[in-house]
Amino acid sequence: MTVRLGPNRYGKAETRLVHVVRDGPVHHVKDVNVSTSLSGDMEAVHLTGDNAAVLPTDSQKNTVYAFARKHGVGQIEEFALRLARHFVESQSTVHHARVEIEEYGWNRAGPHSFVRDGGEVRTCVVHHDRDGRDTVVSGLKDLVVLNSTGSEFHGYIVDEYTTLPPTTDRVLATAVTARWRHAGDGTSSYAKSYEEVRRALIDAFAGTHSLSLQQTLYAMGERALTTCPEICEVRMVMPNKHHFAVDLTPFGLDNDNEVFHAADRPYGLIEGGVLREDAPDAGFAWE
Amino acid sequence: MTVRLGPNRYGKAETRLVHVVRDGPVHHVKDVNVSTSLSGDMEAVHLTGDNAAVLPTDSQKNTVYAFARKHGVGQIEEFALRLARHFVESQSTVHHARVEIEEYGWNRAGPHSFVRDGGEVRTCVVHHDRDGRDTVVSGLKDLVVLNSTGSEFHGYIVDEYTTLPPTTDRVLATAVTARWRHAGDGTSSYAKSYEEVRRALIDAFAGTHSLSLQQTLYAMGERALTTCPEICEVRMVMPNKHHFAVDLTPFGLDNDNEVFHAADRPYGLIEGGVLREDAPDAGFAWE
Amino acid sequence: MTVRLGPNRYGKAETRLVHVVRDGPVHHVKDVNVSTSLSGDMEAVHLTGDNAAVLPTDSQKNTVYAFARKHGVGQIEEFALRLARHFVESQSTVHHARVEIEEYGWNRAGPHSFVRDGGEVRTCVVHHDRDGRDTVVSGLKDLVVLNSTGSEFHGYIVDEYTTLPPTTDRVLATAVTARWRHAGDGTSSYAKSYEEVRRALIDAFAGTHSLSLQQTLYAMGERALTTCPEICEVRMVMPNKHHFAVDLTPFGLDNDNEVFHAADRPYGLIEGGVLREDAPDAGFAWE
Amino acid sequence: MTVRLGPNRYGKAETRLVHVVRDGPVHHVKDVNVSTSLSGDMEAVHLTGDNAAVLPTDSQKNTVYAFARKHGVGQIEEFALRLARHFVESQSTVHHARVEIEEYGWNRAGPHSFVRDGGEVRTCVVHHDRDGRDTVVSGLKDLVVLNSTGSEFHGYIVDEYTTLPPTTDRVLATAVTARWRHAGDGTSSYAKSYEEVRRALIDAFAGTHSLSLQQTLYAMGERALTTCPEICEVRMVMPNKHHFAVDLTPFGLDNDNEVFHAADRPYGLIEGGVLREDAPDAGFAWE
Repeated sequence: MTVRLGPNRYGKAETRLVHVVRDGPVHHVKDVNVSTSLSGDMEAVHLTGDNAAVLPTDSQKNTVYAFARKHGVGQIEEFALRLARHFVESQSTVHHARVEIEEYGWNRAGPHSFVRDGGEVRTCVVHHDRDGRDTVVSGLKDLVVLNSTGSEFHGYIVDEYTTLPPTTDRVLATAVTARWRHAGDGTSSYAKSYEEVRRALIDAFAGTHSLSLQQTLYAMGERALTTCPEICEVRMVMPNKHHFAVDLTPFGLDNDNEVFHAADRPYGLIEGGVLREDAPDAGFAWE
Repeated sequence: MTVRLGPNRYGKAETRLVHVVRDGPVHHVKDVNVSTSLSGDMEAVHLTGDNAAVLPTDSQKNTVYAFARKHGVGQIEEFALRLARHFVESQSTVHHARVEIEEYGWNRAGPHSFVRDGGEVRTCVVHHDRDGRDTVVSGLKDLVVLNSTGSEFHGYIVDEYTTLPPTTDRVLATAVTARWRHAGDGTSSYAKSYEEVRRALIDAFAGTHSLSLQQTLYAMGERALTTCPEICEVRMVMPNKHHFAVDLTPFGLDNDNEVFHAADRPYGLIEGGVLREDAPDAGFAWE
Repeated sequence: MTVRLGPNRYGKAETRLVHVVRDGPVHHVKDVNVSTSLSGDMEAVHLTGDNAAVLPTDSQKNTVYAFARKHGVGQIEEFALRLARHFVESQSTVHHARVEIEEYGWNRAGPHSFVRDGGEVRTCVVHHDRDGRDTVVSGLKDLVVLNSTGSEFHGYIVDEYTTLPPTTDRVLATAVTARWRHAGDGTSSYAKSYEEVRRALIDAFAGTHSLSLQQTLYAMGERALTTCPEICEVRMVMPNKHHFAVDLTPFGLDNDNEVFHAADRPYGLIEGGVLREDAPDAGFAWE
Repeated sequence: MTVRLGPNRYGKAETRLVHVVRDGPVHHVKDVNVSTSLSGDMEAVHLTGDNAAVLPTDSQKNTVYAFARKHGVGQIEEFALRLARHFVESQSTVHHARVEIEEYGWNRAGPHSFVRDGGEVRTCVVHHDRDGRDTVVSGLKDLVVLNSTGSEFHGYIVDEYTTLPPTTDRVLATAVTARWRHAGDGTSSYAKSYEEVRRALIDAFAGTHSLSLQQTLYAMGERALTTCPEICEVRMVMPNKHHFAVDLTPFGLDNDNEVFHAADRPYGLIEGGVLREDAPDAGFAWE
């Protein structure tokens, strides 16, 4: 039997970088988690262990720290692009780089003091190829939202295994993971874009009278696209964090959607994308 | 060999209750995790499996949900006390109850829409004994704070295994778990007390020029006690979340406390308490 | 701006099923975690919330339990295929089903007593499309392996950010996630196939003198393919769980690769596939 | 208001040490997680930040690594005692040391190759005080066991919130955390003792026809004490990992305890101890 190497990439995952910028007595903090992945002329290292084409993952980590010192971090998309381009441009054996960054927020509590914001995590994934193409996907995860009413679910298929009663009033809760692809050359302000997309997602979640979580998901993506022309596609993963109204009748009590059991597993899981009709080809953006 | 039963308790852990309070079109959400533990005449169930003295953990869970419907949740300390007293007063075999609650915060995003606050978790542990004694310990956990300067560490013991260089400027970061014991009959406003203690802890963390994490811990406890006369003792667990300045000299770069590696393990772990000289005996409060 | 629906799917994730098979006094246990995902005519539900094409995720969960009762679980690939085919064949709006299962092992401790095997988790992902195509990918995850010698790393690119010294003796450790695609109609015995692939992966890991983790990964995939003709492609994700030899010279001690610090983050991450030259097209197998 | 320092301790948590012992071409691996805690003359460091009494946590970590090189690891109780005694005996300001170790098992897959055993984790906590007292508590955690029959639950209190039906046949499953205190000077063989206690716990779990989880817990502790005279007290924490028989009647199916939903939360939680009548005073053993 003849076998061959399939798709592959390698890199350093989860380099935890905290960058302190000192503006006199007032400090600023960037707290990020950087993962780099390279691919290219990697036949030899897989087949014979010849590392001549391999930039060590340790060097990739060092580059992250050195670039923070040289250039600052700034917007994570820009930092990721700078790293991706560097790896491809500096090493002929590296044909393609993917850089993924998570950013954790901090709120100010003093000139040099901070309280970590435990809410959603800002994310990005960028690619740079030696043919010159860049792709930028921004995103967030762990944005947990809940509507205590304004959500229905009925009119679905009833098969022999269906026992779920229809409802015209339920709690709708989810932990949003959303990623959005920037069109063309990205944006001049990823910070502003992030705030606007985030706001659009939350507003659409809160403002949509929901007949299904799919409808809500689509409305969120549509709102982001129509609000933020710099993006062309949104992909979302939204678990349906079930809140079951507890049956209190055995105790002589009614329960008009007041008392809920927040369940862990299983959970519904809705995955979907919304894109502009004229969105350019995604290429490797989602890989 | 003769053996006997030692200390024991049993209950239902992690009942996840979400309570929606409808104030017309405006809703309010309480999101809590309730754990109950009972003890008393439990020899028989251990030695012979005779359950006559056992209130099932399933019934304890039901009680949590029913009480939310009957009484609302309100401040978690009050809800915990109500439950603890109920179990002891309603069952002669139950001599003592311990109730622990975690509360997760939500920020408003609309009349019935909410975004989960991922920051610190509010906690309480209350005890009620059939002799009538109550104890109330309030607290928080996962309050992650960081000072980017204003922290030194030197003058410590140097033994044959010491390689750590002294420093007059380092990042100080920790994830605070703090619990504070209420004196006497507790307070008329646990909500206000919580906000004040939380503020005192953060202010003292931010405002203390630190020569050791122990000094910071003590200052935080002292600040809480002097600010909030309703409490008599504070206990804290504070991991030292090390941020190591990266050596960039191999790359021809200096690093004046700007670029840090945020390490996972190992970590320093500081545990300590501060209490008023006249604090009443703690009894079973910390169990 | 015109927007439209992109790729989407929905289902019930993490239905935790334990199936007890009673063979007289001797019982057998199957402990699985089932996630189903359906796609098809889902425009309406996204755009208007019309659920007429939606089989509720609750019904999907019920089907998992009912099928366990009707047909038993058996090999997870077979159980997954049965579910996937059912959803597509029974609902005209469902054009495609993806079923993912994790299986947790238990070791016997008595006729009806078991101790959970905490080692690797067995996995599968199957697809069934209404055009009749099936794909079956089996796998495992969390298989943690370590070679205490027999691993080198040198000859790599040295750029301006490279400080890693070359080594001819290091610890090589990883947590293997491996997935393998079955050729044609799969196998008559997924149980036997699983044991053989698992054995091939471990043997190749243990038996390969490694010049890079990539080389080890390729050797593992090649071994599995040459040992098990029923599979045509293997994809692996292998974090390099770094074990750093501790510098003990400050304490007057040598350290000839005996004392290691097992680090958490960052870590190298190697992803790669090996496939037979004549492997059929993968279609949606890896989605 | 006058405040003062309460109970306190500090140390280095989770030093991850892997020790490779080379016996010619055959290697042996010890994989442990060591946490040290010291207490003593620590007023000054808390009140003024004077570190003169403080042995840095970094030095504690170094000591762990150096001692592994000097003395090997051996049984974790012995390694922990060696460390605890060293800290107290070498530093006059350190009056008491507590050392906690977790050990992760590995199975051999070749002369220098290993597969991690993902089952239970072996643990110990030892104390050494400057008055010369030692205590040794050995243990295990994450030992997940299940009986598919042989468990009943009935005869319990039925109050107004009780809806649970009695049962004469249920699944009983738990994740055992057990710790056992050694009497007198401990044992000459902690390895043998560990295997015997572990076996006693599993055998008693499997062999006890259970009328309540409390009864099973007691039987397990009693078995360990009567089998292993070197120990004098056992404390256990056992969550009742509920397995609910799924109601399949809506689908025209019976379910004679074959198909179960393995639930996450809430769960019963049973905590209890068993000790010999003549057990010596525990002192600080359980702190």
